[in-house]
Amino acid sequence: MQIAILAFDGMTALDAVGPAQVLAFLPGASLVWASPEPGARRTDAAMSIVATHALGDVPRPEVVLVPGGLDVRPVMADARVLDWLRTVHATTRWTTSVCTGALVLGAAGILQGLRATTHWAMLDRLGKFGATPVSERVVVDGKVITAAGVSAGIDMALRLAARLAGDTVAQGIQLGIEYDPDPPFAGSPRTAPPAVVDAARRALSGGGAL
Amino acid sequence: MQIAILAFDGMTALDAVGPAQVLAFLPGASLVWASPEPGARRTDAAMSIVATHALGDVPRPEVVLVPGGLDVRPVMADARVLDWLRTVHATTRWTTSVCTGALVLGAAGILQGLRATTHWAMLDRLGKFGATPVSERVVVDGKVITAAGVSAGIDMALRLAARLAGDTVAQGIQLGIEYDPDPPFAGSPRTAPPAVVDAARRALSGGGAL
Repeated sequence: MQIAILAFDGMTALDAVGPAQVLAFLPGASLVWASPEPGARRTDAAMSIVATHALGDVPRPEVVLVPGGLDVRPVMADARVLDWLRTVHATTRWTTSVCTGALVLGAAGILQGLRATTHWAMLDRLGKFGATPVSERVVVDGKVITAAGVSAGIDMALRLAARLAGDTVAQGIQLGIEYDPDPPFAGSPRTAPPAVVDAARRALSGGGAL
Repeated sequence: MQIAILAFDGMTALDAVGPAQVLAFLPGASLVWASPEPGARRTDAAMSIVATHALGDVPRPEVVLVPGGLDVRPVMADARVLDWLRTVHATTRWTTSVCTGALVLGAAGILQGLRATTHWAMLDRLGKFGATPVSERVVVDGKVITAAGVSAGIDMALRLAARLAGDTVAQGIQLGIEYDPDPPFAGSPRTAPPAVVDAARRALSGGGAL
């Protein structure tokens, strides 16, 4: 089972690596990191991830995962990426995104008419792609699964693992990565202090995000 | 403030990238990925991370982070890594590990006499390094912080961010990565089904882990 993760300069590393860590432990899974051209792609975590495959070398993945980034406009405007997403989406079992990766799926026309989610600070942007924005951690609509911001990719991937390989396998993976979270603060705009929410919203907009 | 993350072949990607994503958003932080030689290091998530620095080029990081892997014995036997850890630990503000990265700190002699934790399946291995194993998510003893398995690095890094830059900054980062976890299953051997715990323990031993 081939799982293709889109890699691009400016990607948020954890958007991709959280799910990759879960899905890499799926029996029979083969992960590939694909980009218009193979090579090292800069992330926003001060490191690069090596894309081993060109998009054209990954014509029929069974699962596609699109991570996000602080500014995904260059990816949303890259016809090579959008054409590839539309083509492979026709035959995937699951087409998925994390964080603002949903905006890339949207730009490819894949979210038209679907319920979907993305990072909380960008949620209202989904409407212009014909999607219904949903403030949930993981949203499944047909074969399209979208996850909320950054760390939500881990929750998404565990649910995807359960659908692909059953609950027992997914339980084993969750235990293997000891995913028994103990966050020190609030991670949702519904529960965080309003001043922190406002500052985060300003910082994200100022960072060149959509 | 320089934060050095040790990179090595066979590292567990999320051990390093979870904390890196948190710490990269710290104002004034400069993350470097260091290895005995610069270059791409294979992770167990089907991708490589590029180490940009040789260990010798990172003589005085203020924070050191050692990720783990399914089999860290080669790292525990690498005198270049152990010598570097001992040297930089003398002047760090914080020396940290995630998952079996604690065993590498242990091999360097850094856990002698300290309370520490690691992946649940390896916890009893800490004793031979003179450490007191503690079954907690994040353990702070002096300036040494150890985290439990894989995903615990995110919880550790948020606590570290709060100590380095204050609660408000750490709250903003947690909200930025939307860390409001919603795991579908149990992630601790205390709460997971016993059969799943037994199978995970067998799989981890069979995978070449210590």
